[in-house]
Amino acid sequence: MALRAALRNSAKCGFSGLLSQLSSSGSHGRVYVSPFLLSQRRNDSTSSKINVDFDRSTGVAVMRMQSPPVNSMSLDFLTEFSISLEKLEMDKSCRGLIITSSLPKIFSAGLDIMEMYGKSPESCGVFWKAVQEMWLKLYGSNMVTIAAINGSSPAGGCLMSLACDYRIMAENPRYSIGLNETQLGIVAPFWFKDTMVSTVGHRTTEVALELGLLYSAPEALRVGLVDQLVPEDQVLQTATDTMAKWLAIPDHARQISKSMMRKPTIDKLMSNREADIQNFVTFITKDSIQKSLRMYLEMLKKRKS
Amino acid sequence: MALRAALRNSAKCGFSGLLSQLSSSGSHGRVYVSPFLLSQRRNDSTSSKINVDFDRSTGVAVMRMQSPPVNSMSLDFLTEFSISLEKLEMDKSCRGLIITSSLPKIFSAGLDIMEMYGKSPESCGVFWKAVQEMWLKLYGSNMVTIAAINGSSPAGGCLMSLACDYRIMAENPRYSIGLNETQLGIVAPFWFKDTMVSTVGHRTTEVALELGLLYSAPEALRVGLVDQLVPEDQVLQTATDTMAKWLAIPDHARQISKSMMRKPTIDKLMSNREADIQNFVTFITKDSIQKSLRMYLEMLKKRKS
Amino acid sequence: MALRAALRNSAKCGFSGLLSQLSSSGSHGRVYVSPFLLSQRRNDSTSSKINVDFDRSTGVAVMRMQSPPVNSMSLDFLTEFSISLEKLEMDKSCRGLIITSSLPKIFSAGLDIMEMYGKSPESCGVFWKAVQEMWLKLYGSNMVTIAAINGSSPAGGCLMSLACDYRIMAENPRYSIGLNETQLGIVAPFWFKDTMVSTVGHRTTEVALELGLLYSAPEALRVGLVDQLVPEDQVLQTATDTMAKWLAIPDHARQISKSMMRKPTIDKLMSNREADIQNFVTFITKDSIQKSLRMYLEMLKKRKS
Repeated sequence: MALRAALRNSAKCGFSGLLSQLSSSGSHGRVYVSPFLLSQRRNDSTSSKINVDFDRSTGVAVMRMQSPPVNSMSLDFLTEFSISLEKLEMDKSCRGLIITSSLPKIFSAGLDIMEMYGKSPESCGVFWKAVQEMWLKLYGSNMVTIAAINGSSPAGGCLMSLACDYRIMAENPRYSIGLNETQLGIVAPFWFKDTMVSTVGHRTTEVALELGLLYSAPEALRVGLVDQLVPEDQVLQTATDTMAKWLAIPDHARQISKSMMRKPTIDKLMSNREADIQNFVTFITKDSIQKSLRMYLEMLKKRKS
Repeated sequence: MALRAALRNSAKCGFSGLLSQLSSSGSHGRVYVSPFLLSQRRNDSTSSKINVDFDRSTGVAVMRMQSPPVNSMSLDFLTEFSISLEKLEMDKSCRGLIITSSLPKIFSAGLDIMEMYGKSPESCGVFWKAVQEMWLKLYGSNMVTIAAINGSSPAGGCLMSLACDYRIMAENPRYSIGLNETQLGIVAPFWFKDTMVSTVGHRTTEVALELGLLYSAPEALRVGLVDQLVPEDQVLQTATDTMAKWLAIPDHARQISKSMMRKPTIDKLMSNREADIQNFVTFITKDSIQKSLRMYLEMLKKRKS
Repeated sequence: MALRAALRNSAKCGFSGLLSQLSSSGSHGRVYVSPFLLSQRRNDSTSSKINVDFDRSTGVAVMRMQSPPVNSMSLDFLTEFSISLEKLEMDKSCRGLIITSSLPKIFSAGLDIMEMYGKSPESCGVFWKAVQEMWLKLYGSNMVTIAAINGSSPAGGCLMSLACDYRIMAENPRYSIGLNETQLGIVAPFWFKDTMVSTVGHRTTEVALELGLLYSAPEALRVGLVDQLVPEDQVLQTATDTMAKWLAIPDHARQISKSMMRKPTIDKLMSNREADIQNFVTFITKDSIQKSLRMYLEMLKKRKS
């Protein structure tokens, strides 16, 4: 896993774009990935966790998460997501991005607990840096980003949705969405919180985070966690129609407005990135937290059998 | 009133926990109150303004305000409240606190005007420090705190409710709640404002503070000043049931989440505490403000007769 | 245009009250306008873009914008507005201000594009300073300010409304209001954004600014952009009745509360005023932006014919 190794190395550096690091000199043990190799890899979609379909005629790309069984955000998944996103970002002809799932009933189950359970502090740090990277790139994207939420979307899946410009969810009351970390005995960090406050306000976020609330689709619409509900088979089409309306706005004016709304929140993580990683590592490697995770994993196993 | 004297002395110091001051050395004229004496006093509930009923089997304490006629927050009242709260806070077996009133039709009428009318600047400063203390301890409590609002709750009563994690109010439209200070010609300070903004947002707070609005119970629910209305005789039971749900969440994760939401607001007062006292004293001792208070007191007297 | 020249000069200085500059020494090429001349001008309402009607018996002034065809905010318009406002502000007997339009169907069409199209950087800077001045004076007014929005109110017209304490709009669904700058390829600056966030919250503002949304009167009520809808012929009367309620509150307490809510937002512009002017000038004089404005102006011309 060359990309993974590269990301691990990048954890030791200050922040900079992922691709720029990947394409930098391969000395000092760094893995060199040429843009050519990179594109090779991305076209090799049989092993991909993410399928990207870019229509040059409309300027809109559709990203389909396809990592069974539940689109868990592992380090590999996040790395591929961030590289795909940065590639689209750098392509001036790509103006809009729709993110959806190719799996039934699930958008994404969120962060992969296996990346946090029984792992070394170093591994946990590399993983957390990749989570930060996903959010930084998506929340700050110059493209119009729409989440086509065609299934449940807890924790990290909710964060990914909140980082988009607009959220359309299947109106299935059995699908749920929310930052439910406290239910597992873990805690959403400040930038998850900031993203949610900017979307649904301080009070709704306070209760939601303290109780780890998962909202059914109709409740999510009511509190403003999603913008629109449509029948399940119309989620992607509605996202495509909505995208056309957003793309009717001059890009430069929309981008400056977006940046004005989001830059303070992004800057807050950017200037606390290493401390945030350290906080996460210290917390997640505690015996008591590891025990919570083990109990949760055992509960999941029992549920399956 | 040993406790009151102790608090008066503490006004000269920087901030620190109340109990730690009370139990510090009695030299330099300070009153020494041993933990033993303190607990003696608290068990002497016949003279108490606040009755505390702690059920060790559930981990939930119920605090009943019982200071006729309207649970006015005098210096004695606030001192007893803060000491009771700190004692529960330090008892690891106490995880939840329900605050309610044992008087009919009133939760609390708020700050006792007699503590601000015709008093020396020093007395006003001691009183204000006790108001800050109540809010700091309650807003920052590690326990789950639920206000069971079984009557009207203006001004300081509203502040106490807002400082809790959850608010359940009797659905009696004759009961009202709000920060109505401007109606009396006085002004809610920045931390009252911050607490309200965090609950109902900036615009609702702006209008409410400028006009000194009191909301009826149904209006309070509509703007989000309270979370739930139930029939009057079910307020305490609903609070108890709600508490059970909050206590199902792992304490440490809930506490970290709560602190993340509230710490910036608490820190703002903590780093401006002396200036805030000075502002209050300068304002409240003005001739024009004292005149406003006198007129208000006379109006209250007329209403009674 | 003596006033206009004075304002142009004032653009070179740091911020200070408009009137104080106008009445300062006429040396160094500055135009001297005595208070007497000033009042002469204001009474000469035949050439006025703004009619002020102050009723000393109620303490309420009504400002009617009367600059056909659409109350565009030109430099002259803004200068007259700010001087009128400052004059009322300095008159202790004036406690409330109602702003409305004397033209049919339009409150104000917002900033006059002719002041930004094909103008020198210096002229653009002078104009922008006048826009800042209007907002600073109105948002920070000690008077109770009510917008009686009896017609459409896009862009700068929306900003003027948002700067008031209360907004009453004609319930005509053909009337619209909103910060629609991005639709024209230009961008609302941070203090427009701050004012809107304080009124309708972060998320509504984010979508509204990115898409340049204009809300119909009923939609504007629903998102909180206006406070009340009434039949068109009752807008002014409702404003008058509402004013009476606001004036029942002691001025000093209301003013302190208002300042507490708004001062941080005002301070933010005050300490970035020159940089904000520079940003505007750099942006608006770009070839691409000038081209956008030309296309918009041509579109307006076609629509007329």
